[in-house]
Amino acid sequence: MTQLEIMGANAKNAARFLMTAGAKKNDALHAIANALRKHSDEIIKANEKDIENGKNSGMSESLLDRLKLSPERIEGMAQGVEQVAALADPIGRVLDGRTLDNGLKIEKVTVPMGVIGIIYEARPNVTSDAAALCLKAGSAVILRGGKEAINSNKAVATIMRDALGNAGFPKDCVALVEDTSRQSATELMQLSDYLDVLIPRGGAGLIKSVVNNAKVPVIETGTGNCHVYVDKSADIDMAANIIYNAKTSRPSVCNAIETVLVHKDIASEALPAIKAELDKKNVEIRGCEKTRAILGDSVVPATENDYATEFLDYILSVRVVDDIDAAIEHIAKYSTGHSESIITNDYASAEKFTSCVDSAAVYVNASTRFTDGGEFGLGAEIGISTQKLHARGPMGLNELTSSKYIIKGNGQVR
Amino acid sequence: MTQLEIMGANAKNAARFLMTAGAKKNDALHAIANALRKHSDEIIKANEKDIENGKNSGMSESLLDRLKLSPERIEGMAQGVEQVAALADPIGRVLDGRTLDNGLKIEKVTVPMGVIGIIYEARPNVTSDAAALCLKAGSAVILRGGKEAINSNKAVATIMRDALGNAGFPKDCVALVEDTSRQSATELMQLSDYLDVLIPRGGAGLIKSVVNNAKVPVIETGTGNCHVYVDKSADIDMAANIIYNAKTSRPSVCNAIETVLVHKDIASEALPAIKAELDKKNVEIRGCEKTRAILGDSVVPATENDYATEFLDYILSVRVVDDIDAAIEHIAKYSTGHSESIITNDYASAEKFTSCVDSAAVYVNASTRFTDGGEFGLGAEIGISTQKLHARGPMGLNELTSSKYIIKGNGQVR
Repeated sequence: MTQLEIMGANAKNAARFLMTAGAKKNDALHAIANALRKHSDEIIKANEKDIENGKNSGMSESLLDRLKLSPERIEGMAQGVEQVAALADPIGRVLDGRTLDNGLKIEKVTVPMGVIGIIYEARPNVTSDAAALCLKAGSAVILRGGKEAINSNKAVATIMRDALGNAGFPKDCVALVEDTSRQSATELMQLSDYLDVLIPRGGAGLIKSVVNNAKVPVIETGTGNCHVYVDKSADIDMAANIIYNAKTSRPSVCNAIETVLVHKDIASEALPAIKAELDKKNVEIRGCEKTRAILGDSVVPATENDYATEFLDYILSVRVVDDIDAAIEHIAKYSTGHSESIITNDYASAEKFTSCVDSAAVYVNASTRFTDGGEFGLGAEIGISTQKLHARGPMGLNELTSSKYIIKGNGQVR
Repeated sequence: MTQLEIMGANAKNAARFLMTAGAKKNDALHAIANALRKHSDEIIKANEKDIENGKNSGMSESLLDRLKLSPERIEGMAQGVEQVAALADPIGRVLDGRTLDNGLKIEKVTVPMGVIGIIYEARPNVTSDAAALCLKAGSAVILRGGKEAINSNKAVATIMRDALGNAGFPKDCVALVEDTSRQSATELMQLSDYLDVLIPRGGAGLIKSVVNNAKVPVIETGTGNCHVYVDKSADIDMAANIIYNAKTSRPSVCNAIETVLVHKDIASEALPAIKAELDKKNVEIRGCEKTRAILGDSVVPATENDYATEFLDYILSVRVVDDIDAAIEHIAKYSTGHSESIITNDYASAEKFTSCVDSAAVYVNASTRFTDGGEFGLGAEIGISTQKLHARGPMGLNELTSSKYIIKGNGQVR
């Protein structure tokens, strides 16, 4: 057995313990939160090594900021774990049930997934966040973070494992893959005898690599080429305000927009108002010919590639379209199926857009920035699924569960 | 673009049509049922070629029987399509919804999957069954049957596509991959730009090949190494009757049992009663040492490999276990997670078994043979999932759907 197979077998055993752990899971989570606080200094010391390595390898300021842990951030991690403990247990919910004509009583009940793998990049807080969510959902978790945060992740994982052991849980409820080579990532993606699901959290490159290499079931998350369509009947002030919010409130996240589509009949009035808002944050506009005819040559010509790009930056593609059908067509062609919004006062347009746009979250007259587990009221979020299988959109605790049928009889045969 | 990519792109366009087809889907299904009846002769003629090829290549009688179509069987296919038309539409159900504090009204609604791929083996009736279920669920389908049934499948698919065209639907709502090479199967498994999910229906070899090669999301179906555990407190007559039913009523199907585990305190009384039932159908028993000590040397010694084997035949492994924990341990080690049953009159044993056995369907005092979409009241079945993601156990129309969030506001920004 390889080291990862041994880790998988241990996780599978721990998962069997967790299947019936019930409310004791909360004791383990509180033990983890307290241990993170108690060992805050150790975590910071380990994190300093990562920061130093990052600086030496020329890591950008914004990445260094994501990587950096402070006493406040560690307190935030501990509180995050406590918040997960406070959520309702997603296991044991009866989803459906009835008595069949032959007297069999059948119930469909939520059960743990088993062993969950999480592959992620530079943020060390994901280590505790993801572990807490998986534990609460009754599953063991194998974590594989990026090499940039390996020292921080090792410190956090060791503290969590010790806390689990002290709370009477198998340490292997949480495990960290310490080998951060590409090979270990690929091996994890193919650990089909042990992993029930693998969730990648990170940029488009990571997601693509997982989808291409995985032999275990995967939930794709996070890439968001999101759109706002300004319909003929839109309230222009509302449109400009929503577009400004959806583009600039946090351009680096997946629910930020990348393209605005504007109905031709409203374009000459709407586009200058939209641009006026975007100018406040110096957003670069890349526009189609009609957009440039209205907004002038300061607008960069948009290419096919621009429409397909998730900029994650202060850049926005803009295209004037003939009608709502052309907008829906554009979205079908370029969207990653994350979040799209229509700004309209027309009932038929709102219904058509919500029916025909095939994305995880489809909005009328609201910012796409709301696509988030916390905002949707899920309590916490492990990621945002952009696939159609199992979970779509923000995933909370319920999306980390599976189900089984329990059938009770008194001797029935078929 | 390859031929399969073109097929995928066409299916994706057809899927967009189906997204909003609503009750018109039933017209298309009735058109298909009528066309199958009308062109029954053509199908039988094509089927005769498959039968002839099968005979020439030495196909077994039981496989030839599965392959063979008669007027009655084609009438059964047509009626199957009509039964699917009569089921409730799984699309547009509101799964959840509420108004958030900021006034956003959020709903989670079932939507079509998009494009579904089905890879299957020799039965030509799957061609119409699977197509009908996918259509009703609002998805386009790409079918890839086995080479043994290619002539039958081509005839059935052509008739369905023509019927769709006549009913005003895109023909590409249903497509058949006519190239039955291994290469075309592999290409289909990797058609990730077009397929939203791939469902293999067939033997363990096919399922394994799909899991190993697929880059699209897969729902594993069907392999069933199922168990009955006879607890200390079991009613012995009930146990013998259930075991007889679960082993012999149809040994070739996935919900038939392969191993019986018997508590040591009841073994000397229960095993002879069980054997007496099984002897009626000459079931070969492969037993552990304790089983052989009770039943005698006519029982073949069981090997590790026997416990891991899905015999799909009149063969049964039998093992005497020390207690319920040993039974649960055995099942955790050897089961494929399909269906298991405990025979008991003890409340705590029933609760422990249903909580701790991690399979899609867990029974108390009933035959595992009930694990079936029809028996569970799902109306029809596309297969039985043995994975934990998306669907577990029998899959009906609901399991062929995805969901999306629709959020309605009046200008909300974050």
